[in-house]
Formats: sequence, structure tokens, C-alpha cells
Amino acid sequence: MTDPQNHVLQTGATIGILGGGQLGRMLSIAASRLGFKTCIFEPAGDCPASHVANYHYKADYSDTDALTKFANACDVITFEFENIPTDALDIIEAITPIHPNRAALATSQDRFSEKNFLTRIGLQTAPYAAVETGEDLEQAIDQIGIPAILKTRRMGYDGKGQSRLMSPDDAVQAMTDMAGAPAVLEGFINFSVEVSVIGTRSANGAISCFDPGENVHRNGILHTTTVPAKLTRAQRTDAVLLTANILNALDYVGTMGVELFVTPTGFIVNEIAPRVHNSGHWTQAGCAIDQFEQHIRAIAGWPLGDGSRHSNVIMENLIGDDVNRLPDIAKTNTAIHLYGKADAKLGRKMGHINTVTGASA
Amino acid sequence: MTDPQNHVLQTGATIGILGGGQLGRMLSIAASRLGFKTCIFEPAGDCPASHVANYHYKADYSDTDALTKFANACDVITFEFENIPTDALDIIEAITPIHPNRAALATSQDRFSEKNFLTRIGLQTAPYAAVETGEDLEQAIDQIGIPAILKTRRMGYDGKGQSRLMSPDDAVQAMTDMAGAPAVLEGFINFSVEVSVIGTRSANGAISCFDPGENVHRNGILHTTTVPAKLTRAQRTDAVLLTANILNALDYVGTMGVELFVTPTGFIVNEIAPRVHNSGHWTQAGCAIDQFEQHIRAIAGWPLGDGSRHSNVIMENLIGDDVNRLPDIAKTNTAIHLYGKADAKLGRKMGHINTVTGASA
Repeated sequence: MTDPQNHVLQTGATIGILGGGQLGRMLSIAASRLGFKTCIFEPAGDCPASHVANYHYKADYSDTDALTKFANACDVITFEFENIPTDALDIIEAITPIHPNRAALATSQDRFSEKNFLTRIGLQTAPYAAVETGEDLEQAIDQIGIPAILKTRRMGYDGKGQSRLMSPDDAVQAMTDMAGAPAVLEGFINFSVEVSVIGTRSANGAISCFDPGENVHRNGILHTTTVPAKLTRAQRTDAVLLTANILNALDYVGTMGVELFVTPTGFIVNEIAPRVHNSGHWTQAGCAIDQFEQHIRAIAGWPLGDGSRHSNVIMENLIGDDVNRLPDIAKTNTAIHLYGKADAKLGRKMGHINTVTGASA
Repeated sequence: MTDPQNHVLQTGATIGILGGGQLGRMLSIAASRLGFKTCIFEPAGDCPASHVANYHYKADYSDTDALTKFANACDVITFEFENIPTDALDIIEAITPIHPNRAALATSQDRFSEKNFLTRIGLQTAPYAAVETGEDLEQAIDQIGIPAILKTRRMGYDGKGQSRLMSPDDAVQAMTDMAGAPAVLEGFINFSVEVSVIGTRSANGAISCFDPGENVHRNGILHTTTVPAKLTRAQRTDAVLLTANILNALDYVGTMGVELFVTPTGFIVNEIAPRVHNSGHWTQAGCAIDQFEQHIRAIAGWPLGDGSRHSNVIMENLIGDDVNRLPDIAKTNTAIHLYGKADAKLGRKMGHINTVTGASA
């Protein structure tokens, strides 16, 4: 268990963030609001988080010396992505605490482990089976049925590392798509809508969740999150309790994103992310204390905000050349968040916008 | 006049900020949200703005070489305080545009010029007279009466450089307090309340003002700003029109703070500040686009937000050892903004908090 006497970081302390993308950028800004200094570890030079951080260790995750210096410079360390090399974590953790913990990271780094964990704590997932060989896939298809989706166990995000099977004939192509990587076959879920809950747990076990948001994807990438989601009061309660269940089971410290499919038989957990989450960006406009600050508060041993929402919000991602719409967007009363990325590549998250649509009911 | 074909800065451009305090810090964060890079010029090393900026030129305002390099590194330059040495501005402006313009800066750097300007455009100020000698002061007292307050014409802020005259006997002490600096005697105003309007003007002349906030001071330093202010609809309209009048008359580009005394005979302009203003910090919690982003939008040639307020807010400054209350404040659902200053000296602005008190009516 986490020590309830967890050290409370004083303002002026340094928070380390592994990863220099937009999540690291917004975490860094949130940390600065609380008077913390920030230190980014990221191999890329002109990265989004480095623009707003005190320090940037520009080094590879295999650079033991740089990792050691980074860890020594920080009072606590967190991360913006789940695929951090284990060796790097070993080096860092020997020097400075990392939140969320390694177990949470290990669980969510691997789709199969994640689904096993969720099943173990009594939550529903899509039917799933591990697949390493063509024979595994055949058996899995027999067990789960078609249509289904084959996904790499590790390193997948935004629809990458996935292959759909609409008929058994697609099996060969799907195995080719995995390129030899261990995979998991997931049955299709007949869901009406996807929602996500952003929850935070502090070191002393306090939990605070934001209202569920309703997600719409395009081309496998989150397009919009709308709050409030169209859920009944009972569903909202269920979604939050389920998220608390996950946070407690992992003895988690920090903010987590939990994606849920809404089905006639209840929620099915699609995915958990051991970090701040794109579907929680709306909290910047809807809450006094947003998901980024909640995360920083949790890892710093501070009390959490209560997660209450003062406004309804629609968050929309700006993907690739969506940024060409900026001149028009800037004419509206919408909060713009750009990530400082130079090239608007296809499918690249360039920024997001938050539109307040009214006071919360 | 400003060229209406003013250059529109693209994201990725660099915004220079003279001054590395908390206003520079929050301007820098706002600029980063719009995808701009930021460059701070500030002699002090570990300054608040440097923690969140891309670049920090740590050099003195007399360092011609550093000023030149700074100006060359920026696409547009602005400032967080009005007392920038003229020579430094000359060097910078020869290379890169500065907003707001020099005339606005010159006007507001000098209390006497400021009051002359306000009077010229038809606004009410406290009765005032320039004072350089003891004889000037005697004449001024005859003209204005007692009680009155003697203030240095330049470099005063947060009640510094001021001396109260409650009787003619205080004249000698007041002159001593001025330490030979040119001063202005101001008559006392019998006002019910102080409000301020934060207004922004873009290069093409568009103006957007936030709702007036009601200010309470303690020991000459702003303590709280409450929005909405207790004003009639007609008063709110007057306050905004008056602010627009000032912005237009100065051909101003950027955000300005206008402090107004509410009296039975209308508004009396206490002071104008050619920059974002402490009494506008509430906009971070009450508006989709806050005063800092409005300023950045204006100087970057972007469209302004409409200034609309979605929530009522009370902003409270954390001065000196007010920060000792942080553990309790952190337990409430209040947005905390700390400035990253190491020492909580007496009277030093360490941060502020914004509490949302409800949806705007």
C-alpha cells in the first residue's frame, strides 16, 4: 500500500515528466500554476513540453547518465505516456519516486494484462484471447467469433497496430499486420456510445472523478468529447464507482482515463490509460481544477479538487490540417490550445479547442 | 494610426516579453496556448516568467548587445510593466515592433501626463497639480485642498512613492518622502467603491472589454476583485465605453487596466495601466479567453475573444505570508495560481486564487 504519510511537496519543488508531448506540456503548465518547477525528459529537441518547462533533458531513454541526472534533479517523477522502457524506469525509480506506480504502468502497457486485471476485479471487457500464432488466432476466432479486431498487446494508440477481421479470410492479413508482435483478439462490442471517466486518486486514497464525457472518434482518433454525456444518473454513478474500483485496485496515485462502452447490459471497459487523457481536456474549460492539475496535486501529495463542473463543454481535437481552420476558430469565443508542433502531419494532434456551451445543470 | 493591414503572427512565431514577473509568466503561458514561442527579457535569474518560457535573456536593460539579440529573436515584443528605460525601448523598437505603443507607455509612465491625457479626452480625474518644490506644494494645497495625497509622477506602484496629507503641517514630511522626485498632488475622492475594467484593442481597432470587477485594497495593495461588480446596467455600459474611449485615443494595441472610482457624479479615472492588470486575473476562471490571451491575440494580430463571462468569480491575492494558508486553500475547489517566487516577503505578490461563485446571470 501507499504510505499515507506520503511526503507533501512544497511549492518550489521540481516535478519530472517523462515525455515531451502535449500531455507533458499541459502537465507542466499545471505544475507551474502550483508553483512547482518542471523538468522534461524527452529525446526530441523542440518538443511541446520543453516550451513551457524549466528544464529539458534532451536524451535517449537508453542514456543512463542522463536518466540519473534527471532523476536527481526531480523531487517526484511522472509520465505522459505508458510505453516507457522498463530499464529506464528501473534507473529512475532507484533514485526518485515515480507516480503512478510501476504495477499500474505494467498492467496498462499490455492489452492482455489489462483485460485480465479488469476481469479479475469483476469488470466487463470485450471477449478477448491472446494471439501469438496463426493457430492461436484460429482458436480465438472460434471462441470469440467474427467480426473481431486483432490488436498488438503493446505500443498501440490512436488505432495504430490494429487489424479488423470481418471474415475468417482476413486472418492471414491480420497476422501479417501484427508483424510478429504478440497480439490480442477482441470481439466487437455492440455499443450505443463511448464515454470516458477521468479519475484521480491521491496517495492517501482519496478519489475524485470528473463527470463522464461522451466521445466521438474519427479514423480511430478521438474527435470530440461532450460534457455532460447522455447518461442516466444511475449510469453516471456506475461509471464513477467503476473508475474508483480500478484506481483502488491498482493502488494508483495520479489521474487515469477510463474508456467505457455503453451497452444494454452495462458498461464494458474498453481501455484504461495510466495518465491524463485526451478525453479529459474539456476539464480545462469546465472545472476550477482540471485533470492536469489533479494529476500534479495527486503526485505532489496535495489535496485533490472535488471534480465539480461549473460549465458544459464540447472539446474538439485539431488533427493534422484541422489547424487550417484556426483563423475561423479564432473568431469565435472558443478556448484554443495549440501544442507548438511545427508540422501539421496527417493524423497528428496539433491542438484542441474547448467551447463552453452553458452553465452546468 | 495603426496599419489595419497589420501582420498576423502565425503559430510558431516568437513573442518577446520585457519583464519576468508574474504578469510575464501568465502572458507567456497564454502565448504558449496559442502555439507561440516566448522569449523573456529580465535581469533577474530565477524569475517567474522564465519558468514557463522558451527563452530567457538574462541581462540588464543597459545591455545593448543583449537587447539587440533579444529583439532579433522576437517577431513582436510586449511588456509586463510600464517603467522600461526609454533607451532600451529605442534599441528594441528599431528592430521589432512593440505593442502597446510608446505613446501609451509614455502617457501612463507619468501620473501628470496621464491625468492631462484623461482630462483632454473628457474624462474625470481627481483634482491634481504638478509639484516639484515646496512652493508648488503650497499652491497645490490651496488649489486642491486637504486631505490630499502626494505621489511621485513616476515609478510608483502598490502604494509606494505616496504620502498622505491630512493637514497642511504634513507638507514638509510629504516633500521629504518624495526625495526630490517630481510629484503630483491629488485631491481625495469620496468614492463608494473602486471598480476596474480590463479592455483590449486589436490592431484593426476592434475593442473587447471584460465586465467590470469590484476591487478591495489592503495596505495599498489589491486584495480582492469580485465579479460582477455592484453596478447598475447603465454604469457597466459607461465604464466600458469610457475604457474604449481611452483605448481609441491612444491608438492602443493590447490589454489595458482602467481603475475607476464610483462617485455620485459618475466615474473618476484613478489610474490606467498599459498592460494586463492584477484586477483582471479573475478572467482566468470566468471567461473562455482571459486577459492574458486577449493581450497576446491583440499584439499577434489575431481576432479578440468577445470578453463574455460564463461564471462569477472572486479573485484574491496571496500577499507575503498569505501563502501559509495554502494547505487550507488547497482543500477547497479554488483555482490556485502561484508565481514560483522563492521568498514570501512582506507585501510581495506570491500568487492569487480564483473562486467560481456561480454561473453568470
